[in-house]
Amino acid sequence: MLSEPLAATDPELQHCYSNVRQRTLELIKGFSVEDMMLQSMPDASPTKWHLAHTSWFFETFILKPHAVNYRVFNDSYEYLFNSYYDSVGERHPRPNRGLLSRPSLDDILAYRHHVDTAMQALLSRPSAGAVADIAVIGLHHEMQHQELMLTDIKHALAQNPVAMSCPALNPRDTLLQETHNPPAQNAPHYLPPFTTFAEGIYKIGAQSAGFSYDCERPSHRVFCEAFALANRPVNNAEWLGFVRDGGYRDPSLWLSDGWSRCQAERWHAPLYWQEHNGSWYELRLDGYHPLELNAPVCHISYYEADAFARWSGCRLPTEFELEVASSDSTIEGNFADSGHWHPRPSDDSKTLQQLYGDVWEWSSSSYSPYPGFNPEQGALGEYNGKFMANQYVLRGGSCATALAQMRPSYRNFFYPHQRWQFSGLRLAQ
Amino acid sequence: MLSEPLAATDPELQHCYSNVRQRTLELIKGFSVEDMMLQSMPDASPTKWHLAHTSWFFETFILKPHAVNYRVFNDSYEYLFNSYYDSVGERHPRPNRGLLSRPSLDDILAYRHHVDTAMQALLSRPSAGAVADIAVIGLHHEMQHQELMLTDIKHALAQNPVAMSCPALNPRDTLLQETHNPPAQNAPHYLPPFTTFAEGIYKIGAQSAGFSYDCERPSHRVFCEAFALANRPVNNAEWLGFVRDGGYRDPSLWLSDGWSRCQAERWHAPLYWQEHNGSWYELRLDGYHPLELNAPVCHISYYEADAFARWSGCRLPTEFELEVASSDSTIEGNFADSGHWHPRPSDDSKTLQQLYGDVWEWSSSSYSPYPGFNPEQGALGEYNGKFMANQYVLRGGSCATALAQMRPSYRNFFYPHQRWQFSGLRLAQ
Amino acid sequence: MLSEPLAATDPELQHCYSNVRQRTLELIKGFSVEDMMLQSMPDASPTKWHLAHTSWFFETFILKPHAVNYRVFNDSYEYLFNSYYDSVGERHPRPNRGLLSRPSLDDILAYRHHVDTAMQALLSRPSAGAVADIAVIGLHHEMQHQELMLTDIKHALAQNPVAMSCPALNPRDTLLQETHNPPAQNAPHYLPPFTTFAEGIYKIGAQSAGFSYDCERPSHRVFCEAFALANRPVNNAEWLGFVRDGGYRDPSLWLSDGWSRCQAERWHAPLYWQEHNGSWYELRLDGYHPLELNAPVCHISYYEADAFARWSGCRLPTEFELEVASSDSTIEGNFADSGHWHPRPSDDSKTLQQLYGDVWEWSSSSYSPYPGFNPEQGALGEYNGKFMANQYVLRGGSCATALAQMRPSYRNFFYPHQRWQFSGLRLAQ
Amino acid sequence: MLSEPLAATDPELQHCYSNVRQRTLELIKGFSVEDMMLQSMPDASPTKWHLAHTSWFFETFILKPHAVNYRVFNDSYEYLFNSYYDSVGERHPRPNRGLLSRPSLDDILAYRHHVDTAMQALLSRPSAGAVADIAVIGLHHEMQHQELMLTDIKHALAQNPVAMSCPALNPRDTLLQETHNPPAQNAPHYLPPFTTFAEGIYKIGAQSAGFSYDCERPSHRVFCEAFALANRPVNNAEWLGFVRDGGYRDPSLWLSDGWSRCQAERWHAPLYWQEHNGSWYELRLDGYHPLELNAPVCHISYYEADAFARWSGCRLPTEFELEVASSDSTIEGNFADSGHWHPRPSDDSKTLQQLYGDVWEWSSSSYSPYPGFNPEQGALGEYNGKFMANQYVLRGGSCATALAQMRPSYRNFFYPHQRWQFSGLRLAQ
Repeated sequence: MLSEPLAATDPELQHCYSNVRQRTLELIKGFSVEDMMLQSMPDASPTKWHLAHTSWFFETFILKPHAVNYRVFNDSYEYLFNSYYDSVGERHPRPNRGLLSRPSLDDILAYRHHVDTAMQALLSRPSAGAVADIAVIGLHHEMQHQELMLTDIKHALAQNPVAMSCPALNPRDTLLQETHNPPAQNAPHYLPPFTTFAEGIYKIGAQSAGFSYDCERPSHRVFCEAFALANRPVNNAEWLGFVRDGGYRDPSLWLSDGWSRCQAERWHAPLYWQEHNGSWYELRLDGYHPLELNAPVCHISYYEADAFARWSGCRLPTEFELEVASSDSTIEGNFADSGHWHPRPSDDSKTLQQLYGDVWEWSSSSYSPYPGFNPEQGALGEYNGKFMANQYVLRGGSCATALAQMRPSYRNFFYPHQRWQFSGLRLAQ
Repeated sequence: MLSEPLAATDPELQHCYSNVRQRTLELIKGFSVEDMMLQSMPDASPTKWHLAHTSWFFETFILKPHAVNYRVFNDSYEYLFNSYYDSVGERHPRPNRGLLSRPSLDDILAYRHHVDTAMQALLSRPSAGAVADIAVIGLHHEMQHQELMLTDIKHALAQNPVAMSCPALNPRDTLLQETHNPPAQNAPHYLPPFTTFAEGIYKIGAQSAGFSYDCERPSHRVFCEAFALANRPVNNAEWLGFVRDGGYRDPSLWLSDGWSRCQAERWHAPLYWQEHNGSWYELRLDGYHPLELNAPVCHISYYEADAFARWSGCRLPTEFELEVASSDSTIEGNFADSGHWHPRPSDDSKTLQQLYGDVWEWSSSSYSPYPGFNPEQGALGEYNGKFMANQYVLRGGSCATALAQMRPSYRNFFYPHQRWQFSGLRLAQ
Repeated sequence: MLSEPLAATDPELQHCYSNVRQRTLELIKGFSVEDMMLQSMPDASPTKWHLAHTSWFFETFILKPHAVNYRVFNDSYEYLFNSYYDSVGERHPRPNRGLLSRPSLDDILAYRHHVDTAMQALLSRPSAGAVADIAVIGLHHEMQHQELMLTDIKHALAQNPVAMSCPALNPRDTLLQETHNPPAQNAPHYLPPFTTFAEGIYKIGAQSAGFSYDCERPSHRVFCEAFALANRPVNNAEWLGFVRDGGYRDPSLWLSDGWSRCQAERWHAPLYWQEHNGSWYELRLDGYHPLELNAPVCHISYYEADAFARWSGCRLPTEFELEVASSDSTIEGNFADSGHWHPRPSDDSKTLQQLYGDVWEWSSSSYSPYPGFNPEQGALGEYNGKFMANQYVLRGGSCATALAQMRPSYRNFFYPHQRWQFSGLRLAQ
Repeated sequence: MLSEPLAATDPELQHCYSNVRQRTLELIKGFSVEDMMLQSMPDASPTKWHLAHTSWFFETFILKPHAVNYRVFNDSYEYLFNSYYDSVGERHPRPNRGLLSRPSLDDILAYRHHVDTAMQALLSRPSAGAVADIAVIGLHHEMQHQELMLTDIKHALAQNPVAMSCPALNPRDTLLQETHNPPAQNAPHYLPPFTTFAEGIYKIGAQSAGFSYDCERPSHRVFCEAFALANRPVNNAEWLGFVRDGGYRDPSLWLSDGWSRCQAERWHAPLYWQEHNGSWYELRLDGYHPLELNAPVCHISYYEADAFARWSGCRLPTEFELEVASSDSTIEGNFADSGHWHPRPSDDSKTLQQLYGDVWEWSSSSYSPYPGFNPEQGALGEYNGKFMANQYVLRGGSCATALAQMRPSYRNFFYPHQRWQFSGLRLAQ
C-alpha cells in the first residue's frame, strides 16, 4: 500500500499504478454483487460504476489518445461511464447509474483487467514519460473514488432497514439490542485548548514539485490576521451538548439556508446517529456502535458545523488558516490505509493534533479560484474548475482518504448541505 | 404448466401449488442477479422483490395463522415484503424496493424453499381444506406477479442504453443496425368488421363455482344498449396511421388529462416504439424487432386508446360489453404459457377473435364496485376494493398472463396513464 | 332573479340575459378591487378573471361569428380569457391568472358592458333565434361561474390569516375570540331513515325539451337493483362522530389514493373546519361560525365521502340512483338565489329532503359518456366531453348554485380530491 | 431628495426621515392598486407588502421598544409583515405575500401615516439620539426596498403578455411593432482599456464614522496581487457578441451549476432581452426599447457573468479589487435619484468610469464574514449575517439604487442564479 505522496516523477510509477488499482479491488472484498448495484441518491454512485469509471479515466485520457493499437474494450462505455466531462461527450444521466445491471460486474472487472494490461504495457515503454503526468492524475483520481466507494456504500446500506451493518465485514444486524453497557454520555460544554498563529502574509497553495491539482495552484500570498485554532476537532461529547442544548431547534444559530435545510430534512443530529433507549449510537462501516465521546464528530454538513461554531462562541477557520497550521505538521494520522474507516479518539494531552486524517474539516472558505488560476488543458480542465461555485473547502483528509493523497495544499470541496462524507470541524477564534 | 382455471375445489391443489411456484422460477432463468435488483420506477418492482413478496403472501395469510409450529423465516420480511396491506402493518416504502441488496437473492430463494416446504406439508394434511380458498388466492396472486415480473423487467432493461434486448434470452444489442429489410409500412385507415350484439339485460360478474376475486362479485344484471365490437384488436398498422395523421399532436382527439400527460411526457408513439431511419421498431422481451403490422398494438395508455377510438370515429367498449362478448368464447389464445410473450398477428379471415390473450383491452369503465360488492374478510379485503378509484378496467388477458388465470369475469385495472403492461384496445360502436 | 330553468325557447331570452349578467355584478358588490385579483390555487381563478371569461364566452361563440360589424373589444382578450378551448387557440396559463393586474377591473367592466350592448342588440333582432341555443349555453355557463366566484373567493380569503371572514358582507375578524357559547357537540352515531326504490330499468338523462348540456344526453335506459337512499344528507353531527372515532386516522376506511392524499395534505376534518378550545367552527362566506350540527356537512372530497360511507356501513349512491330519486321531487331548496350561501339544517321530521340545493352530493359514478354521447359541434364540444376521466359526478346543486340551473339530469363533476366546492354526501344502501 | 450618505449623526435626521419615506410614495405614483398586489415569484414581493414592511421595521425596532404610549396600529401586522426575523416571531409565508388582499392598500397607507406620525414625534424629542442609530438603519433599509420595489414590479409586469410596458409611466403596448429603425447590431469582440493597480495590503471595509452595515465591518487588511480592471462595465454590444458566438450553448464556458441552471431555465440571453425580426429589444421600466449597444448589460446572473468573463479571456474581479478601485472615485453616477431607472451608455473616451450607479457589478467573492465580524445586537443581527452562504457580493449600486445608500464598502449580495436585479459585470485581469 502506498504511504508516500505520489508524483509523476516517481521512478516507480508502474509499481504505484499496480498498488493503487489493486487497492480498489481490495476494498470491495466484502461487498456482494447486489451491494455493488446500489445507488441511494444522485450524489452517490454504485460501487460497480466507480470500478468502471476509474478505468474509463485511464482509457479516455491516456489509452485512446496515446496508446498505439489500443483496442477499445466496449464502445458504449464512453457514454456509460463518463462522469461529467462535457468535452468528452454525452453521458448516461447520473441519477440512473443504479439502473445499469448490464454491463455486469464480471464485464466491468474484465474491463479493469483490459485497461490495466494496456496501461502496464504503455508505462513500461521508454516513452512512458509522456503520459506520466496524466497517469498520476488518474491514480489520484482513483484514490478519490476509493473514498467515495466507502462513503457511498455506507449511505446505501444505511437505507436498508435490515443491513444496518456492512455484514461482509462484520455482520451485526441486531447490534442495537445487544448493547448492554450504554456509556455515560455527559456532554460538558468546554472548549479544548487553542494554538495561536501570528498575523502575516502567508504563502498558500502548492509550492513543491510534487503532485497537486490545478485548483491548488498557483502558490500565492494571503494576509491573515492573527488567529487561533483548537488543538483537536470538535468531538462527539461536545456535539451531544449542542444537540441537548437545542442546537437543532434554534434558528438564531443557523445560516438562513442552513435553517431551511435543517427543517426540510428534519435534521436533529449528525447523519447516521441514532438514539435508542436514551443512548446514542452511530453507524460505522461495520454496523452500529455506541457513540465514542472523545472521537471527532463526523457526517455533518457545513451548515451544522457553522451553527455549532456559533453556538460555541467561536467560528470556522478559513482554508488558509487550516493550511497555515497544517503546513508544519507531519502528514500522518488515521487514514484509509489503516482499514479502520472511522475517526479515532483524540488525545487531550497532546497539542495540535489530527490536522490530517480522521475527519475532513469544513473551512469557512467558498471553493473559488486562486489568483491566476489556470485549469488543466483539455477535458481535464473540467476536473476542478467548473465546480467553483456554491461549495465549501474541506481540509486535511479523513479516515477514508488514502494517505498518499494528502498534502497541506489539498482542497476538497462539497456543497454545504452534504453530510455523507467523513466531514467534521475544528474551531477557530 | 397449468392450462385450466384453478379453483379451491381442485383435487390437485398440491400439484397446482408446485406448478405455479415452479413456473415463477422458470421465468427468471434468463435474468442475472443484477437484473433482478432493478427498479426503474415506483410502479414497478425488482424481480427479487416479486420472488419474496409472493412467498410472503403464503407465509402471512396461511402459514403464520394456520400452520402449527411454523417457524418464521426472518422476522424482518414481514416489513420488507408487505406490498400494501395496511392491516398487516408498516412496510418498506415502495420506491425503495430497489435498494434492498440484502437479503440477497440466495436468501430469498431459500425463503421460497422454506415457505414451499411448509405449504406442501400443510396442503398434504386432511385439514388442508381450511386453507384451500386462501391458497388458491395465493396462486392467482402469484400468477399476477408472474405477469408483472415480465412487464417490470422489460421496463427496467428498456432504460438501459446498452441492454436494448434481454440478452439472457437472445442478446442482440446491435439489432437496430442489423435490420436490412425494413418492412413497407403502409397504414391504411380502414376498420375491421364488427360483430353486433342485441340490447338487453345481461348477467355480469362471476357466476360459476370456480375461483373469482371479490371484485368480480356479486353477479348482477346490467342493461346494455345494442352494440358492436370489432372482430379483432386495433393493430400496429392502424396505429401507425394514427401516428402519421398527427394523432399525438391534435388536442381535439384527447381527454383533457390525457393531453396534459401526452405533452408532459412527450408521447409520440406507444411505449417501446422507436423510429430508426424511417422504419419503426418495437421492443419485445428479446430485443428490438421491426413492427409487425397486423399484430395488436400494445403498451398504450387508456388516454391513447381513447384518443385513437375518437380519431377512428368509434369508441371504447364498456367492460360489460367486453364481458358479454367473451362469455361465449372459448378461453384460448396467446397466453404467457406459450413463452412467446408478445402479441401475435390477427387473422382477418376470422370472426370475433383474440378476446383472450395477446393484449389486455382497455374498457371505458372506471374500476368500481359491483352493486352489493362485499370485500374479502380481513387483510385480503385490501386486495382489490381499495383501488376502486381513478383506474380503468381491462379485460381478456395478455401474452404475459397465465391461461389459468383467465375467465370472462376477470377485471384487471390500471391508471389511465400507465403504459408498461401489454395493453391494447378493441373498438366498439 | 331567475327562478325557472332557462331554455333557448324562452320567449324572454333578452330579459334572461340581462338578469343573469346583472346577477354576476351583484355578487361582487362586497369584494374589493384587491380581493378580485386573488388566485389561491391553480384550480381557482380570480373574480376578475371570471368576470372577463364569461364575457369572452359570448364574444367568442356568438358575437365574433354571428354579429355583423361587431368590433372586438381588445384583441389580446382572446388569449387572456380563454379557459381551456384548444380549438379557439393558445391561452394564458391557468396558474398565472392571478398575475393579470392589467387589464384593470375597470377595463373588464367596460368589456362586460361592451359585450352586453352588442348581445342585446343581437338578441333584439328577428334573426336572434339563430344564436339562441348558444346564448342559453352562455347563460348557464355564466351561472356556473357565479358559483365558482363564490367558492373561489372563499378559498382565497381563507388563506389570509386576517381575512377569516368576508368583511364586505359582515366583517368579524375576531370571531373566534368572541364566541362565548360553544355548542354542545354530541355526535350520536345513528343513521337517518331511508327511502326505498324498486329495482328496474330507469330512464336516465335529459328527457324534456328544456336546456341540457351534451353530457346529460342522450336519454337512455339503466338497470338499477333495488336501493335505498337516506332521507337527508349526512350532517355535521354525524361527521363529527367520524372525526372523533378516528376516521381520518384509519386506513382501512379509505380508498388507497384517498389515504395517500389524506396523509399528504394532513386532512383531519372537512376543509374550513377549525377547532378552537375544544369547539369546532366552520368558515362561511361571512366568517367563522360555530358548527351547526344538524346542517349537511360540506367541503369534503369524494375520498372523505367514500370513507365516511364505509365507516357508517353504507355506501355512496350511483348518479343514477340520485337521479331516479330526484326526478319526482320539486326543484326547490336552498339555492344561491337566497343569498345565504351556506347549507341550512335538515328537518328530521320530513321524508326525502334536500335532494336539491344545500350541498352537491358525491355519487360513486365516474364521470363518463352516456351510451351514444355526442358532443356539441365545434369548440363547444370541449365544454364537457374532454373532462370525462378521473372525475366523479355530483348531483343536486348547492347553496351557491342558481336555481335556474337545476334539473334532475344535471351532472356536476370534480376530481375526487377536491374540497373547495359545497360538496357533501347522502348515504345509500 | 437625499444626495448625501445618511448617518446617525446627521443633524437633519427628521428631515431625512421625511425625505426617504416620501420618496417611497413617489415611486408608486404610476402603479395601480392591482399592480401593487402582484407577486410573480417567491423572490419578489408585492409593492403593497414593501410599503407595509418598511413601516413594520420602524414600528418593530423603534416604536414598540422605545416610544412611550405608542399604540400598535394592528396586532396582526407583526406576523404579516415580518420578512425573515426569527427573533421577532412567526411570519406569513413568503410565497403567499401576493394573497394578502387585506389589509387593503388604503389600510397600509394609513399604517405608514400612523408610523410616520409616531416616528416624527419621537425624533423631535431631545432623547431621539437613543434611537438614531436604528432609525438610520431603517432609512437605509427603506432605500433598499425602494430598489426592490422597482425590480420586483418590473419582473411582475414582465410576466403579463399585455403589460409589456409600465403603462403608468409611458404605455407602449405595441412598441415591438412600431420600431421602424432597428439599429445595426455589430458586436465587435474587443476589450475596453484596463486600469492597473499595484499589489499590496489594502484596507477593506467601512473605515469612516459614517453609516455602514455590520457586514462591512470591521475594517481589515487584505493582500491583493497586482490587478487590472476594465475602465467600464461590459456593454450590450459585447454581450451580443457572446450570444452570437454561442456563449449560451457551450458548456465549456460555464460553471457546472451555472450550466445546469442555463439549461433548466433555457437561458439564451439576459433576462428581459427579446428578439424580434432579427433585432434585439430589452425591457425597461417604461416598456421595450431597442437594445442600446454601448450601455452596460444588465439583468444577468453571476453564472452568466462568469461565463462571459471566461469567454473573453478575463475573469471577474474580487470584491476587494472593486473596493480598492472605487475607494478613490467620487460617488456619483446614474442612480435612482435621476428617475431614469436604466443603465446609461458608457463614454469610451473616459478612464475608469461607472464604478458607481448604472449596474451592480458581480464580484467573484462569496458573501462571507470579514475577520472579526460582529453582527448587530438582537434581531437586527439577522439583517445580514445569516445570509452569508451561497451568495455572491455585488458592488457599486445601480440605476435603481438611491445615491444616499452608496459608499465604497457597500456589499450587496444575491444568489448566483438571480437575474432580476440591475446586475452587470466589469472584467478584471
